[in-house]
Amino acid sequence: MNQLTIVKVGGKVVEDPQSLEVMLKEFSRIAGYKILVHGGGPSASRLAGQLGIKNQFVEGRRITDSETLKLVIMVYAGLINKNIVARMQALSLDAVGLTGADMNLMLAAKRPVKDIDYGWVGDVKEINAPVLTDLLNQNFVPVIAPLTHDGAGQLFNTNADTIACEIAKVLTYSFNVRLVYCFEKEGVLRDENDEESVIQSINREEFQAYKASGVVKEGMIPKLDNAFDAIAAGVKEVIITRAADINTGKGTFIVQ
Amino acid sequence: MNQLTIVKVGGKVVEDPQSLEVMLKEFSRIAGYKILVHGGGPSASRLAGQLGIKNQFVEGRRITDSETLKLVIMVYAGLINKNIVARMQALSLDAVGLTGADMNLMLAAKRPVKDIDYGWVGDVKEINAPVLTDLLNQNFVPVIAPLTHDGAGQLFNTNADTIACEIAKVLTYSFNVRLVYCFEKEGVLRDENDEESVIQSINREEFQAYKASGVVKEGMIPKLDNAFDAIAAGVKEVIITRAADINTGKGTFIVQ
Repeated sequence: MNQLTIVKVGGKVVEDPQSLEVMLKEFSRIAGYKILVHGGGPSASRLAGQLGIKNQFVEGRRITDSETLKLVIMVYAGLINKNIVARMQALSLDAVGLTGADMNLMLAAKRPVKDIDYGWVGDVKEINAPVLTDLLNQNFVPVIAPLTHDGAGQLFNTNADTIACEIAKVLTYSFNVRLVYCFEKEGVLRDENDEESVIQSINREEFQAYKASGVVKEGMIPKLDNAFDAIAAGVKEVIITRAADINTGKGTFIVQ
Repeated sequence: MNQLTIVKVGGKVVEDPQSLEVMLKEFSRIAGYKILVHGGGPSASRLAGQLGIKNQFVEGRRITDSETLKLVIMVYAGLINKNIVARMQALSLDAVGLTGADMNLMLAAKRPVKDIDYGWVGDVKEINAPVLTDLLNQNFVPVIAPLTHDGAGQLFNTNADTIACEIAKVLTYSFNVRLVYCFEKEGVLRDENDEESVIQSINREEFQAYKASGVVKEGMIPKLDNAFDAIAAGVKEVIITRAADINTGKGTFIVQ
């Protein structure tokens, strides 16, 4: 099977022109097929502030009311996605920016309201693997914004880590998949203030222990949940690392 | 040769949910291959106002400084484009939203500064006809936002009427192309206050006379320039009509 690398990059990296350029250059050096999934960044919150839209977060997850949905569509599918696509083209990567509605790529359902109403947030139901495989075989580089749709005209805000995980999982049937979660830190850190304290590998048992002791917390928990989900589903390699280290072999390796 | 209909729809139609729905339903009834090109709408100007960005127009054309470029990327490639794509999916049209940077679809050069510096406005240099043809043959419906790129990482704001015309022209080699410019009026009007005064057909000579007498003015002049450009290049039929009349045969026909 062919090699496929899926890189998920966080919003902070993507919105800093210099970090973005470093990341894209590393990304362009990856051999084989590749897909980039990007998150949203601080500019959604900044823009919300300027427009008088209240930023509401519960446990690090944004509450997406109608105005916020419009905002994230503008920032994720517009500003961030198209900027990455244009920069990739300059690096001779034939990028195509997509949301879940484009080519019916990612179907989702509105997250049910239990204790919290997340608003227009979608949970992924189905990834259109044939469409992605066709694009890759035509040498396009899909650049995927964290938006999904319900097939009935409604767009949803969807977690980018989860999208990267779900795409990786369905493509294990056609490719040897490597999944790289990259962001501004060197990996999962034992001490969040010490960039030298990277945990080199982590298995489920250790993950539970790190959670219990508070070493792993907040946004890192769902990220690691996705990482373990991917590795359990047959993704060959899952790494959490710094954007500049996509190709160096540094970072935290997820072990089943 | 196969039949291809290219519809260009203006921003006012696209931003009114009801008009958009009527237009998309008509669009979905068109037989054969189809492409939608959309313009920007009043929400770019409204958003600019909210963000304290000055709207600057010269002869109906927007001056695109750096902040305005970000804004139109958000509104055109994000909000408007993805809303159309999601609505089309609900109508069982397998839409894919694209800017000129996606799949290297439309290369442009920054408009040279003569009397006026239009800023980040691009003039189309090359349309990637093979990519569009492949998408159509795979039964996708391209939904094209009025943004182009220079191949070196820079996006440009580009006139949507011109984009529709340029796409129509290059695709005459592979399809029988019909180009429909649709908007909120019934066609080119003899009297702008009388919707009954539609000019049923117009040739170049009549166009010159209408311009001289002031019947045709402002934004209608570049639109008709594009229309005559397309018909001269081998586009089989060019019509200017109301969004709801895409399939009725009403409107103004361009005659060579």
